Amino acid sequence: MTEFRLFRGADRIDALSPADRAYAYGDGVFETMRAHRGELPWWDRHWARLRHSAPRLGLILPEEDQVRAEAQALLAGEDAVLKLILSRGEGGRGYAPPAQAIPSWTISRHPLPPPAPREGLTLRWCDLRVSLQPALAGMKHCNRLEQVLARAEWDDPNVHEGLLLNTDGELVGATAANVFMLRAGTWLTPPVDRCGVAGVCRQALIDLADIQVRPLNAADLARADAIFLCNAVRGILPVARLGERQWAPHPGLTGLRRRLGSSHPAFAGLDD
Amino acid sequence: MTEFRLFRGADRIDALSPADRAYAYGDGVFETMRAHRGELPWWDRHWARLRHSAPRLGLILPEEDQVRAEAQALLAGEDAVLKLILSRGEGGRGYAPPAQAIPSWTISRHPLPPPAPREGLTLRWCDLRVSLQPALAGMKHCNRLEQVLARAEWDDPNVHEGLLLNTDGELVGATAANVFMLRAGTWLTPPVDRCGVAGVCRQALIDLADIQVRPLNAADLARADAIFLCNAVRGILPVARLGERQWAPHPGLTGLRRRLGSSHPAFAGLDD
Repeated sequence: MTEFRLFRGADRIDALSPADRAYAYGDGVFETMRAHRGELPWWDRHWARLRHSAPRLGLILPEEDQVRAEAQALLAGEDAVLKLILSRGEGGRGYAPPAQAIPSWTISRHPLPPPAPREGLTLRWCDLRVSLQPALAGMKHCNRLEQVLARAEWDDPNVHEGLLLNTDGELVGATAANVFMLRAGTWLTPPVDRCGVAGVCRQALIDLADIQVRPLNAADLARADAIFLCNAVRGILPVARLGERQWAPHPGLTGLRRRLGSSHPAFAGLDD
Repeated sequence: MTEFRLFRGADRIDALSPADRAYAYGDGVFETMRAHRGELPWWDRHWARLRHSAPRLGLILPEEDQVRAEAQALLAGEDAVLKLILSRGEGGRGYAPPAQAIPSWTISRHPLPPPAPREGLTLRWCDLRVSLQPALAGMKHCNRLEQVLARAEWDDPNVHEGLLLNTDGELVGATAANVFMLRAGTWLTPPVDRCGVAGVCRQALIDLADIQVRPLNAADLARADAIFLCNAVRGILPVARLGERQWAPHPGLTGLRRRLGSSHPAFAGLDD
């Protein structure tokens, strides 16, 4: 089902090198994009995040035009999920990044996830606390064991996502989504400067609407008038339940979803 | 120069899958071993660490006898470094570990590093602070971006290693080694229960000698009578210099090195 294409610099390759540093150390970054009829409406946002992360890690980016063209060729006009992994490239033994690394990258096409439950998501709290690391915060890097461990905490298919606090007890987000809450007419979402991922959909919402970025905790969430998760594959996902707490569908979400739909056609026309 | 052999479960494979979770998420662990005339004298210690880490991450281990036999076949009687990467195996998109993953593993043979400078190592302090994550602490897992960033802080070949503090200001170790210090006749090394790696050579020394494991900081190091780094490839590496501070060779190290040499023949006969 999943189709992969691999590259080293500008060259298509047949197989991943076992000396690839993404394999050895998670030494890379990735993007997961929603394709709509073979197009990637948020391409510029995804590439901007890569352009922002690459110098922080000292990664070299391949040519944007080539990556985009290869991605569109792989998509072949379909609705799908397009994943891009960008690795520092091959290296020897040892952490020191090679001075002349040629970046390697993989694109893969995946089926769309099933639609979210119409009544809203059911969430749980994860036990794992996310560590604080400003040097890596915000990036969608390939060191994701915290998310793997958090996601492994439950296998009940009726629980759709898990929320995470950091080691200071502040809200981070879900394992694979950012979180927003409504309180007294204002939408709030936590910062991503000490941990967490600067999600592309999160940023689209911050650009589109009046969102306050500030630290939040579990008590804040319990007092929320509405909660949603969001990511670049699924857009806005209203939350119906978190532990004992339940939320009815909130009219404040309708306007936000409409505005998001004007930015990414895959997220248009989803609403009530 | 480097030779690789790849496996999926018990089967030799030709190439790494781009769906491998060590590539996507750093979802694996590794061991780096010193081979002496084709033997792996600390095999039991390395395998014990894998057996300890695997259930913490929910990884399946391949058959020990097969891994060891393949490693020895690859070594072909040589002195070398043998690296083993053990991945959860292939997976789909998403952090949830597959219920039925078949572990994949790679062994590789590398040349021995050049001998350490006889006058002792020169160290620096790294700016990066290591994050606190008890759920991952102690393991030699494949999420190593912190070490990559720390090691990228310098390229002066006269600086041999960098020391790291955690976000609480406590000493962690070097980017690729544990650290020990002598103070008033007692050897001390920091714990690895909140961050850091439970090094195989570190554990061998704790088992061989009277070592106190306790939190240390930069001020403690400045007052040390002697310092050394250690890892499973290079054994004990005396430190001569850290910033302005210098240490003359210390007789307290001789006994420790001799005892380590009795545990691993590659580390015997190195001494003055």
